[in-house]
Amino acid sequence: MTALIGIDWGTTSFRAWRMGAGGEVLDRVDDGPGILAAAGLPGGFRQAMQDRIGSWLGTAPVIASGMITSRNGWIETPYLPLPLDAAALAANLTLHEGIHFVTGAVSDPDGPAPDVMRGEETEIIGHLSGGGGDGLFVLPGTHSKWARAEGGALTGFRTVMTGEVFGALRDHTILGRLIQPGPGSEDAFRRGVEAGRQDGALLGRIFSARTLALMDRLAPDQVADYLSGLLIGDEVAQGTRDAGGPVTIIGRGDLALRYQTAFAVLGIAARITPPGMAQRGLWEIARMGKLA
Amino acid sequence: MTALIGIDWGTTSFRAWRMGAGGEVLDRVDDGPGILAAAGLPGGFRQAMQDRIGSWLGTAPVIASGMITSRNGWIETPYLPLPLDAAALAANLTLHEGIHFVTGAVSDPDGPAPDVMRGEETEIIGHLSGGGGDGLFVLPGTHSKWARAEGGALTGFRTVMTGEVFGALRDHTILGRLIQPGPGSEDAFRRGVEAGRQDGALLGRIFSARTLALMDRLAPDQVADYLSGLLIGDEVAQGTRDAGGPVTIIGRGDLALRYQTAFAVLGIAARITPPGMAQRGLWEIARMGKLA
Repeated sequence: MTALIGIDWGTTSFRAWRMGAGGEVLDRVDDGPGILAAAGLPGGFRQAMQDRIGSWLGTAPVIASGMITSRNGWIETPYLPLPLDAAALAANLTLHEGIHFVTGAVSDPDGPAPDVMRGEETEIIGHLSGGGGDGLFVLPGTHSKWARAEGGALTGFRTVMTGEVFGALRDHTILGRLIQPGPGSEDAFRRGVEAGRQDGALLGRIFSARTLALMDRLAPDQVADYLSGLLIGDEVAQGTRDAGGPVTIIGRGDLALRYQTAFAVLGIAARITPPGMAQRGLWEIARMGKLA
Repeated sequence: MTALIGIDWGTTSFRAWRMGAGGEVLDRVDDGPGILAAAGLPGGFRQAMQDRIGSWLGTAPVIASGMITSRNGWIETPYLPLPLDAAALAANLTLHEGIHFVTGAVSDPDGPAPDVMRGEETEIIGHLSGGGGDGLFVLPGTHSKWARAEGGALTGFRTVMTGEVFGALRDHTILGRLIQPGPGSEDAFRRGVEAGRQDGALLGRIFSARTLALMDRLAPDQVADYLSGLLIGDEVAQGTRDAGGPVTIIGRGDLALRYQTAFAVLGIAARITPPGMAQRGLWEIARMGKLA
């Protein structure tokens, strides 16, 4: 019997779970159009959802998190201020066209550098609801999120545009001209992390990706890994500057492993959470909201 | 009577001067194809030079500096190590097809972050030869150079990719999507400089260009100036972190004025050199090399 249908709907990704009475996963969909693609389809978001999980619909409440509640999503919802826990997210669900939308979070809205997230708050709730402790988190991605949880609530976060800037540097600056594709070089990545952890202007240090290649001290098929390491190394060194204790990586696949390598190079304890944080967070928020 | 013909030939620019027996400028050309454009012309670099200053040629020695001696230039010449003064540059001129090429400089070639320049060394020599003192210099551009001169010689420098990264962020990341063109806002630029001077990951601070716009705290036609200020503010704050005394800006036009504004916001004394540093540097190197 289906108790809840959960959707994590991001800019470029769509994942959904059909859950049973104890929150266990009965069925899952791991691919589908992100909001950018779905918005352009005939029938839009509703049809995109129908196409992927139509056979589930009507059997249980639907809850959704992620960029689907942004200006370019299905419905734009306000950001909630910090501190933010599962109860506050549950109390602020937006019911629209039969779907319970989890809204995003805002950090320091009146300060000089406000910040926002949509979706990652649910993953952090998933971690906390499963007995994971407070502490410092990184959620690597196109826009990495560094977040802190205290007393079971999200209390602060910062977006770092590492992934997107890497792509822009590789594809649209002089740094990319010497790059040749290759099998991937962990050694070059580690050299990059060492350059990234150093002090000094980041936009100066990245130039070493070019000069080392010009001087034949970095092979053309190593430049991209070096540059990736340099940006991630800078991010991790700065993100952990004032941190006490270990860092929890919420993420999957190659990118999470890259961050784990960077933490290792920097001598900082880090562990990757098991998969399923978004699904667990959706369950927890639904449970607090009496949906499941 | 023409004593020397000098050319400053960069990636995207060509400038030339016809000089008299005292180094005075008798005639000048301020526009012409940079090396990227010239390389693709029929007849290549020689024809491009002939087209612009053909009437001068044959009357005096020709000396040229800039990216024209890079891998993509007329002839690739080695980089000279630091410290580097006019005498060393004169002793290492490369005569090729009748032109005396000034070669570039390398900083820390065996260290973790080697750096290179071609052309800026000549501008700094121009400043020093005119009685300008030692100190810290910034040469703003697509790739800004931060350089130090001691005892009349170039002793260190660092390339910061501020201009090129600004373009890549504006044109190829999410930061650009909220940008609308406008008349230019010095207030937004100054707000950006304040954000740029702060500590913390640069790739995090730049995200404020998006969040402030999302929250209607930055107008769409101010986002670009804010982002420009943020990058230049970070560059200037980091470039002057360990500097004593005032900074000399070698540059022209709107970009030099932007840097001067950034220095003012940060409370650091800075002055812009008079125009003509490249021409004066070429004269000085030629004079030391007994060409003029």
